[in-house]
Amino acid sequence: MLRTIEIKQSVFESNDREADKVRAELKRRGIFLLNLMSSPGSGKTTTLVKTLAALRGEMRIGVMEADIDSDVDAHTVEAAGAKAIQLHTGGMCHLTADMTRQGLEALGTEDIDLAILENVGNLVCPAEFDTGAVRNAMILSVPEGHDKPLKYPLMFEVCHVMLINKIDVLPYFDFDLDKVREYALRRNPNIEIIPISAKTGEGIDEWCAWLRREVKAWKEG
Amino acid sequence: MLRTIEIKQSVFESNDREADKVRAELKRRGIFLLNLMSSPGSGKTTTLVKTLAALRGEMRIGVMEADIDSDVDAHTVEAAGAKAIQLHTGGMCHLTADMTRQGLEALGTEDIDLAILENVGNLVCPAEFDTGAVRNAMILSVPEGHDKPLKYPLMFEVCHVMLINKIDVLPYFDFDLDKVREYALRRNPNIEIIPISAKTGEGIDEWCAWLRREVKAWKEG
Repeated sequence: MLRTIEIKQSVFESNDREADKVRAELKRRGIFLLNLMSSPGSGKTTTLVKTLAALRGEMRIGVMEADIDSDVDAHTVEAAGAKAIQLHTGGMCHLTADMTRQGLEALGTEDIDLAILENVGNLVCPAEFDTGAVRNAMILSVPEGHDKPLKYPLMFEVCHVMLINKIDVLPYFDFDLDKVREYALRRNPNIEIIPISAKTGEGIDEWCAWLRREVKAWKEG
Repeated sequence: MLRTIEIKQSVFESNDREADKVRAELKRRGIFLLNLMSSPGSGKTTTLVKTLAALRGEMRIGVMEADIDSDVDAHTVEAAGAKAIQLHTGGMCHLTADMTRQGLEALGTEDIDLAILENVGNLVCPAEFDTGAVRNAMILSVPEGHDKPLKYPLMFEVCHVMLINKIDVLPYFDFDLDKVREYALRRNPNIEIIPISAKTGEGIDEWCAWLRREVKAWKEG
């Protein structure tokens, strides 16, 4: 039975301070939180479903699906066998650290190793708010175009890893993989870049290897 | 020589009242303002370039390209022969009516019939702010998926017309045209829906016919 949580938009003086508190609590409990961001329709949910399948039996994963409306994604993720809850943001275009804390409490973290927050589909606002996640990941999909790091710089600056999704349709779009790498690295020289196709499964192994490495480092660090 | 304007984020008590003032002033001067919204990468600029070519010699068009950063789009539009300015929003994820007014002043409206505002690429926040435009248009592109009206309801509610772009790649995506129509009309029974491919030019005639009709009605109404 899917649960939907209407999260409250509390205003804290310092979102950064709240985010540090969320991270400290995650560290204490040995839980890794990934904040997954992208434009609408870049394939966050499909990527998640493939990730869940690849890591089944290896990590206990809980997913928070943040959306302005609808429960479509949470149902999809739950059907893929993960513990999932739907967070309704009440029209808000991003999550704050306190909203994420409410989500983690509602999800319940006793029985999970990895919590994934699927943030609201938006390449602008979510980049401005530290959710308390250990790592930020973003998806840019081929049909969106290789110029996006030039136009939405902050998102590329705050992310540790960028998945380039829908590489199966590369032949049908004027998308230059070299250029997108160059533009993204110009914004953030440390960003890891992994081309994938959530549809065909290409690149999912490399993405899961990144995730495994980061989760291990956080638990042992 | 392209001009870039850093617009100020003035806060007005009522954005709706400011928007009505912008519209009254446009009416007085006989200018139609179109507010064009979409996710990043859905093809706003390419659609604009095709629109400019189709309406050349028929209407005098001025374009305001709103972006958080970069001048890529304004250069593209200027190269297509339109009067264009770049608006930098200073990180803001949407335009307000007052920001639009600043843009119109910088653009100069004495010699144009149709002003087009290319809003920040974002399916959430721009829908919440009336810019003072006569009509709101949005683009949803095929790769984004047909479920978007369920997930970003407000955008579909505030738009008078929705262009479904990139229909040339329909064979490569699980995109259901009937479903997207059904979902969009559920949110907004009056929305006009026009499938196009800005790349191949398909549907641009129908879109320009809509635009012509609306501009005429505004000038004569």
